[in-house]
Amino acid sequence: MPATPPVSADDCAEALAALRDRAPLVQCLTNIVVAQWTANVLLSIGAAPAMVDNPEEAGPFATIAGGVLVNLGTPYAETVSAMEIAVAAATEAGTPWVLDPVAAGALGWRTEIARKLLANRPTVLRGNASEVMALTGGAGGKGVESVDTPEAALAAAIEVAGLHGTVVAVSGPVDHLTDGERVVRVSNGHPLLTKVTGVGCALGALMAGFAAVVDDPLVAAVAATAALTVSADEAAPRAAGPGSFAVTLLDALAALTPRDLAARVRLS
Amino acid sequence: MPATPPVSADDCAEALAALRDRAPLVQCLTNIVVAQWTANVLLSIGAAPAMVDNPEEAGPFATIAGGVLVNLGTPYAETVSAMEIAVAAATEAGTPWVLDPVAAGALGWRTEIARKLLANRPTVLRGNASEVMALTGGAGGKGVESVDTPEAALAAAIEVAGLHGTVVAVSGPVDHLTDGERVVRVSNGHPLLTKVTGVGCALGALMAGFAAVVDDPLVAAVAATAALTVSADEAAPRAAGPGSFAVTLLDALAALTPRDLAARVRLS
Amino acid sequence: MPATPPVSADDCAEALAALRDRAPLVQCLTNIVVAQWTANVLLSIGAAPAMVDNPEEAGPFATIAGGVLVNLGTPYAETVSAMEIAVAAATEAGTPWVLDPVAAGALGWRTEIARKLLANRPTVLRGNASEVMALTGGAGGKGVESVDTPEAALAAAIEVAGLHGTVVAVSGPVDHLTDGERVVRVSNGHPLLTKVTGVGCALGALMAGFAAVVDDPLVAAVAATAALTVSADEAAPRAAGPGSFAVTLLDALAALTPRDLAARVRLS
Repeated sequence: MPATPPVSADDCAEALAALRDRAPLVQCLTNIVVAQWTANVLLSIGAAPAMVDNPEEAGPFATIAGGVLVNLGTPYAETVSAMEIAVAAATEAGTPWVLDPVAAGALGWRTEIARKLLANRPTVLRGNASEVMALTGGAGGKGVESVDTPEAALAAAIEVAGLHGTVVAVSGPVDHLTDGERVVRVSNGHPLLTKVTGVGCALGALMAGFAAVVDDPLVAAVAATAALTVSADEAAPRAAGPGSFAVTLLDALAALTPRDLAARVRLS
Repeated sequence: MPATPPVSADDCAEALAALRDRAPLVQCLTNIVVAQWTANVLLSIGAAPAMVDNPEEAGPFATIAGGVLVNLGTPYAETVSAMEIAVAAATEAGTPWVLDPVAAGALGWRTEIARKLLANRPTVLRGNASEVMALTGGAGGKGVESVDTPEAALAAAIEVAGLHGTVVAVSGPVDHLTDGERVVRVSNGHPLLTKVTGVGCALGALMAGFAAVVDDPLVAAVAATAALTVSADEAAPRAAGPGSFAVTLLDALAALTPRDLAARVRLS
Repeated sequence: MPATPPVSADDCAEALAALRDRAPLVQCLTNIVVAQWTANVLLSIGAAPAMVDNPEEAGPFATIAGGVLVNLGTPYAETVSAMEIAVAAATEAGTPWVLDPVAAGALGWRTEIARKLLANRPTVLRGNASEVMALTGGAGGKGVESVDTPEAALAAAIEVAGLHGTVVAVSGPVDHLTDGERVVRVSNGHPLLTKVTGVGCALGALMAGFAAVVDDPLVAAVAATAALTVSADEAAPRAAGPGSFAVTLLDALAALTPRDLAARVRLS
């Protein structure tokens, strides 16, 4: 582990300031479980969500969006088609896009879809350890939960990152992020994050938002992770359980300042 | 601006009392992002939501519902078909219906769908300034956000209202509503309303609920706008951010009395 | 009514302890309105939700899930196909599954779907009085609301239970549950439960979760009902309306201990 992490607290602060300043339009092709929550997380941090996920509109919109999220939580024939179209259009237009292969490894159909999408070289691949390992031929998870640790997935993450030229972000008690050469760990966060559905999904959307305003995708992914987990640190002591935590987390995202983010993020 | 607005505070209070008394059944053909929120807004104010949005059932249900909402937030082939069927059935049965052309102007496919639906003469057309202007040939918005002002859209709204015999409600810091002859402005509300996804969508559902119990569609649309924005005035001081505002807004909708509504609404 | 109810408070406590211990994987094929809420209810109580509802994956997943929920709130062609596949796979694999025939009786298409699914002998059939009566040839409800009482539906419930070898759970101010021979009443709960969308839908998911860890389906259904309604008793005094009640209910579900459940549940 280097003495100075390759992404700094100041990088995170500058990224948040840029996001607030530009309010990027984030196109989300995501699942029916977390669509509302994802939109509210994006609105709270200062981005502009747009859930455009039909085959007719997904392509044109990906050329005008600042960033695109492709999340495989509840794939249907029509939305998968829209995802393929959006990815092609985003690639053509140079729009950064994030792939979140929810439950890859545990379910065969979506694992194949995820592999095909990954071959299109997303700007960021975000998942838990089991999902990331499943895309490199490793074992799968238990539904949407990870049975592997981020540490164990780091080697797979570095391999995937190098192979596809993508940033790989592995969620867990400590988040591990890599572009294949640099490795950053974010040690903020709270166990309540695992008791609210869609926190990981919303993190993918935040990464798409930060990638819209920051040139370095690793900085974007780290800044998104930092913003969410530092906000969780702020929110958890004010919550009485998972219901109120979801509420205070949105409040904390909206209240988070670049200065607070820089002061509280724990990078290594 | 007339000295006496064409819809009065007492009209709003009577409409709310009628809604509470009759608990109208509101059929919502809406989007995957805001379906839960919309249902909870309707339940909080005292209406009975029913999200019946498949082609097999949308038509028959539109004949027994008190009001119908057609919202284009996340259109899919199957739900668009259900919308067309619901609109035809509502028209045939005389069921009032509300069209919310989310992101019309920014996206081509849904703009055409919105224009076709609008030709069926909805009871109320509800949107932000950019969406309303897009349906009269004006410029489009940035995704689901408006880049035009309600004031600028008023001329377009009056034109659309006269052409289609519909009430047009343009959301914004000041809401502008017109039936082509009368114009009403509602000046309540709070900036936090723009930081919770689906507030505008839920307003469309409220308009369908009020239209089920009030004969004059302009009164229905104004009363719905008043109920939501006066509740927001009550809720905002009790909120610490967008997360808690969504919660306190539902509480305020449930607690709102016709008397409070009449006392606090600012009409002109 | 027997002096000693056929399911005891201790049975409920043991079921909750088992659920917390095993964190069962609950596959939900449910509607777009309540998917997020259902997942959060399951997470709060200690289960692991997975909304796998497409035809490609629903079958294989039903063989590895601990329990399956099939909820007809917003049926579409593709999800109905997934439901049929999931039910066949669950039956073949011996996975317990719960049928929630939302709005059966009020809408023709889904009533037929519900009848076909019911013929596959769900572990538990859960609905309000109108929905249960509709599946035995009785009258239908008003949309998703019941116009019949649980008491009136009890005879129909006992008949359905005996005919299909299923537990039937009828929601209402007092919940009535039967396996065709034994009858249990749960008298906890609060009127605010009717002001939050998806509480009944989430109860079906909880039943699937408890059925994954308890052998006797009647105990599973009673324990799920007890856990939800006792939590509501705890949550309601801390709520200022339906918005905050939804939040405090999730907090109460997470805080509920087996001992508290046994002490507070009112069974007869």
